[in-house]
Amino acid sequence: MLEQVVLLGGVTVLGMLEQAYFSLQVIYARRKHMVSPPATTGPPEFERIYRAQANCSEYFPIFVCSLWVAGVFFSQVLLGLLYLGGRYCYFHGYAASAQGRLEPLYFSAKVQWGLIALSGLGVFCALTKTYLELDLFHYFI
Amino acid sequence: MLEQVVLLGGVTVLGMLEQAYFSLQVIYARRKHMVSPPATTGPPEFERIYRAQANCSEYFPIFVCSLWVAGVFFSQVLLGLLYLGGRYCYFHGYAASAQGRLEPLYFSAKVQWGLIALSGLGVFCALTKTYLELDLFHYFI
Amino acid sequence: MLEQVVLLGGVTVLGMLEQAYFSLQVIYARRKHMVSPPATTGPPEFERIYRAQANCSEYFPIFVCSLWVAGVFFSQVLLGLLYLGGRYCYFHGYAASAQGRLEPLYFSAKVQWGLIALSGLGVFCALTKTYLELDLFHYFI
Repeated sequence: MLEQVVLLGGVTVLGMLEQAYFSLQVIYARRKHMVSPPATTGPPEFERIYRAQANCSEYFPIFVCSLWVAGVFFSQVLLGLLYLGGRYCYFHGYAASAQGRLEPLYFSAKVQWGLIALSGLGVFCALTKTYLELDLFHYFI
Repeated sequence: MLEQVVLLGGVTVLGMLEQAYFSLQVIYARRKHMVSPPATTGPPEFERIYRAQANCSEYFPIFVCSLWVAGVFFSQVLLGLLYLGGRYCYFHGYAASAQGRLEPLYFSAKVQWGLIALSGLGVFCALTKTYLELDLFHYFI
Repeated sequence: MLEQVVLLGGVTVLGMLEQAYFSLQVIYARRKHMVSPPATTGPPEFERIYRAQANCSEYFPIFVCSLWVAGVFFSQVLLGLLYLGGRYCYFHGYAASAQGRLEPLYFSAKVQWGLIALSGLGVFCALTKTYLELDLFHYFI
């Protein structure tokens, strides 16, 4: 069991480190632009960094769920790494300009949809296997 | 193992699709009311949709945790589906008016409390079974 | 399997109850300071409570992921309880004053980093065991 999920655990650890990195960037931006909590508004440079981090936080649970549900059935470590890379580019693109967030955002979204699709496919195949004794996994892997 | 959790995986996939649907609604509302990121304020119609999605995102991790912890012990797929249905009604009720969010919100909250209670009960029974050799599961299922 | 994760499940249930408690505090603060949804701005007393809850929600998924990834390899229930206690002090410190959030925030952050470090260490040891047949767990536990 542990052997099967250790790579998923590794990608999850990388994801947590990335989230921690984004949070530190917001703390630095708060200091630089002198925006003290609980305020969340300030110069556009600060607001972009703040929103980029908020957006990544919002999608983090969906990412982790899709990574594990897809991964338990198909072991999708590569897509997980691509997503984290896309989010890194998104964060720094957004920090530079609102326009700069778009390209990596579309990339991350595509990878995220891929993970969700594989999650659904894995669940569907396991359901047909369990209840209809029809092994569709052979067609996909 | 996979057979036991495949239905929980299925509800999780539905939950991710619902979150993706809510996010798309925010993107459409941003275009319609011309609220460009990083701004999160605008006409009340936009702010209600934005807050509805933010609220659903905030509760999504709690929902997933309660679904799986309750589900591993009691297989609570039905409550999971009820919660997702309640959140769908909440989102569209909130998009229509601030008042319209209340009824489905109370419904979702009750289902969420049910899942948390079952999670706690499942953990409590498993603890008594492990450490006191007292099998309380018989009384509940 | 269930016996191994039941304590992690218990800490997760406590974490969900704590998040529910924070959400109720925001509802009470909305009533007290008459800030109706979808508004999220108001008197500083309200905004601090709102931001404290938003911040705890944002970190909840990271906490749950680190608890489980660290716990599957090292069973880190104690750190999980310390984190939840730290977050409780943070919430009430922040509700009292922006300054009051700092000490418990630093404490929670240290515990969170501890959990992430143990997650990474556990994954690293399991990887070396699986792929290099090198059992480093003996050195740590």
